Amino acid sequence: MASSTPAYDQLARSFTRLHHLDHLQSIAYWDQAAVMPAGGAEARAGALAEVATLMHQARTDPALAQALSAAAGEPLDDFQRANLREMGREWRAANALPEALVQRSQLATSRCEHAWRQQRPANDWAGFLDNFRAVVDTAREQAQRLSQQAGVRPYDALMDRFEPGMTCARLDPLFADLRTWLPGLVQQVRARQRQDVVLQPQGPFPVEAQRALCVQVMQWLQFDFNAGRLDVSTHPFAGGVPEDVRLTTRYETGEFITSLLGAIHETGHGRYEQGRPRAWLGQPVSQARSMAIHESQSLSFEMQLARHPGFLARLAPMIRQAFGDQPAFAPDNLLRLVTRVQPGLIRVDADELTYAAHVMLRYDIERRLIEGEIAPDDIPALWDAGMAELLGLDTRGNFSDGPLQDVHWPEAMFGYFPCYTLGAMYAAQWFAAMRRDLPGLDAGIDAGDLAPLFGWLQQHIWQQASRWTTDELAVRASGEVLNPAHYRAHLEARYLG
Amino acid sequence: MASSTPAYDQLARSFTRLHHLDHLQSIAYWDQAAVMPAGGAEARAGALAEVATLMHQARTDPALAQALSAAAGEPLDDFQRANLREMGREWRAANALPEALVQRSQLATSRCEHAWRQQRPANDWAGFLDNFRAVVDTAREQAQRLSQQAGVRPYDALMDRFEPGMTCARLDPLFADLRTWLPGLVQQVRARQRQDVVLQPQGPFPVEAQRALCVQVMQWLQFDFNAGRLDVSTHPFAGGVPEDVRLTTRYETGEFITSLLGAIHETGHGRYEQGRPRAWLGQPVSQARSMAIHESQSLSFEMQLARHPGFLARLAPMIRQAFGDQPAFAPDNLLRLVTRVQPGLIRVDADELTYAAHVMLRYDIERRLIEGEIAPDDIPALWDAGMAELLGLDTRGNFSDGPLQDVHWPEAMFGYFPCYTLGAMYAAQWFAAMRRDLPGLDAGIDAGDLAPLFGWLQQHIWQQASRWTTDELAVRASGEVLNPAHYRAHLEARYLG
Repeated sequence: MASSTPAYDQLARSFTRLHHLDHLQSIAYWDQAAVMPAGGAEARAGALAEVATLMHQARTDPALAQALSAAAGEPLDDFQRANLREMGREWRAANALPEALVQRSQLATSRCEHAWRQQRPANDWAGFLDNFRAVVDTAREQAQRLSQQAGVRPYDALMDRFEPGMTCARLDPLFADLRTWLPGLVQQVRARQRQDVVLQPQGPFPVEAQRALCVQVMQWLQFDFNAGRLDVSTHPFAGGVPEDVRLTTRYETGEFITSLLGAIHETGHGRYEQGRPRAWLGQPVSQARSMAIHESQSLSFEMQLARHPGFLARLAPMIRQAFGDQPAFAPDNLLRLVTRVQPGLIRVDADELTYAAHVMLRYDIERRLIEGEIAPDDIPALWDAGMAELLGLDTRGNFSDGPLQDVHWPEAMFGYFPCYTLGAMYAAQWFAAMRRDLPGLDAGIDAGDLAPLFGWLQQHIWQQASRWTTDELAVRASGEVLNPAHYRAHLEARYLG
Repeated sequence: MASSTPAYDQLARSFTRLHHLDHLQSIAYWDQAAVMPAGGAEARAGALAEVATLMHQARTDPALAQALSAAAGEPLDDFQRANLREMGREWRAANALPEALVQRSQLATSRCEHAWRQQRPANDWAGFLDNFRAVVDTAREQAQRLSQQAGVRPYDALMDRFEPGMTCARLDPLFADLRTWLPGLVQQVRARQRQDVVLQPQGPFPVEAQRALCVQVMQWLQFDFNAGRLDVSTHPFAGGVPEDVRLTTRYETGEFITSLLGAIHETGHGRYEQGRPRAWLGQPVSQARSMAIHESQSLSFEMQLARHPGFLARLAPMIRQAFGDQPAFAPDNLLRLVTRVQPGLIRVDADELTYAAHVMLRYDIERRLIEGEIAPDDIPALWDAGMAELLGLDTRGNFSDGPLQDVHWPEAMFGYFPCYTLGAMYAAQWFAAMRRDLPGLDAGIDAGDLAPLFGWLQQHIWQQASRWTTDELAVRASGEVLNPAHYRAHLEARYLG
């Protein structure tokens, strides 16, 4: 019997092929970051460029455009229609921009990112600007073209690559509200914590013992080591494919909490990936919903769960087993350690409370940069003013630990930063919903029983993949679209409670 | 100015693209063998099938055939003509067989190899035969078609995939001659060694210390760790790409010499790959010449060099440093250990002398199998007779350690086995030539100076890649085509001298 959906079927086959190429690309990226010797870099770049070209060719094949049109008129069920929606998103992302502009942008970011690696340690803002202006120029041109096509603001068009459907119009009130209470909360919490006695763990902490502890905790978090690995890379990340998730962390012998919390963070990403519905793999509808939803999983693990007093009480004996006993390993001291609020210059080292300030500052600057309100030269002054206002820090002249600290700008990842704080907000919202759905949640965590928590995330987030828009997903999971009140309530309960 | 060789230029670009796909394939294979968790197998199989399909499509593109014809009439220099010759080889290998036959063969070998993994430990010859008959059927059909096309014997056509230009007509006299003296030499050596006192090293030998020793020896052998790695896999191999060579070994704590010699063997393969001319990479002319030449490099390292008394004298202190001192680590005892002759059932565990007997037996059987002189059912009787005649062993009823022991037959790699012994012969020939060209060679090895040896191999073998046919390569390197007298002289000097 002939299929009644031949165009859709053809699309499904094409996207399965893309999925296989994506597999090779993901493993080659992991290999490059985790195990490749330096001498392999040039050959790897050539091979990765080849697979990128093949994927771009597949996505810009005119037959794909025809099939997308034809499939829209076929008798698809709701699931197929959701998959078609995501296919369309992927197609538009690949076809929206002229090839020459894409190449010009890649050249500019590649040059800027490469030089930035030396310029950051050298505090060389002027040198950075020389390359960064071209990055901003091509990003603005991309934003302009995308925004005209989609009828949205230029910055919205860039943010849509990471967070489909999110707009400045929704984000601005969220962040404006945050600005009204966050700096005050930080002051209040710092005053309360001033008298706390916090014992620092005394090293050294051997790398092998740290790694074994990370693996033990990841097993407790039900990361499936039959479908994934933990390795080491300079910049920790979650990569690989859902059937074989590659997480990385890094170890310093003087301190173990950063790498442990890092591994827990990546495990949140990893379980989302491992939990994507296997039956849909290869189809765009099987992809993770968005970067904010992805961060909501890593932060559910790292912030909501790992800083839970019940979790820390269970973690303490594992830490003692790994490194021997110390007074600093008492659960209440561990809690004070991981909830210590201390404004600092570096985003990735920031505590749970001040992290959002780093994000708001970057959003404010990059939004105005993309929409032409400011020039790249204006960034340092805005940076200094923002850090003084939000965190009370003097950053003048320190570019290395200022606007040069993140890889996002040299790589033109404009629109990504908001996802971190949106993820923290969603994570608080999921936990509020879970506490409503699962009255025994906290008692379960106290008892070391994480199955109900993971069952909820599996059912409401992981298994849903891209079946729904982000708003639909949030409503189905928690009864409402993104509601930042849960985030504020969580922070106030944890830090003032 | 327009190129005067447009077809050749187009070919060069196509093969560079193939080279990039081969890079991704090689890294994915290494990953699968060395680090992939079991749960990733199915997804990896899909991705590897996709890249194989892409490579096959590229090699069977009609435009490639047209360009090959057109390039033959272009004003190419000698180097370009050699590259064109190798392009033609690759093209013929991909285009010679109908797609349906290739798929039927892949299905048969995949089923047979998969079941063999259980059947070998279960000694299940009857179960193996059920699948193996289809493997032999499709291999015979391939051999028939290839032989008609190329005007050679069916077995020659299969052997040509691994050892271009080698034929039964050349091989049969070599092996017939071997048969006249090898069994007698084995007897003679065993009688001489009967009185030897050989001390066995006493373990345990911790894996980390073994690994460190392997790395130290590989550094001495000038393996470039900036362009390669050493890892662990069940079946040791040399993989990756020339800029990033991935070697594997495996460790048992009860014994260290096997893994050390294994690492030295793979280092021979690895240095050949690392030594392939970088300027030609991406072109077929840059490939290793053949499997026999590849084995001649691993055996130059493992047999010629690593069993050299001067090398062992330098190795002994490294072994002592790794594991502490033992009487068994005295250089003369190490020499007795690694030159001990002992007929055994397993090819991969065989000593230098009896190894060739295993190869000759397999060649004899598979040649007659492919050319229809015998049926798969006849193998055990021939196996038993051959092992009795060549090595004086009774193998009746023991299929696991008999015809089921190698992966080559379930994988239809008919024509590969001879390369091992051809490689041993070439290795002896290279060392004879080196001793003529470099009169201080042995004194240099005694003094730990391996630079002249590596310089010779670099110049005469590695840098030549596929610039010449195998015969031309041998003549340029050693003044003559393959001459098995060097192999016999080497064995007699080492074991009777």
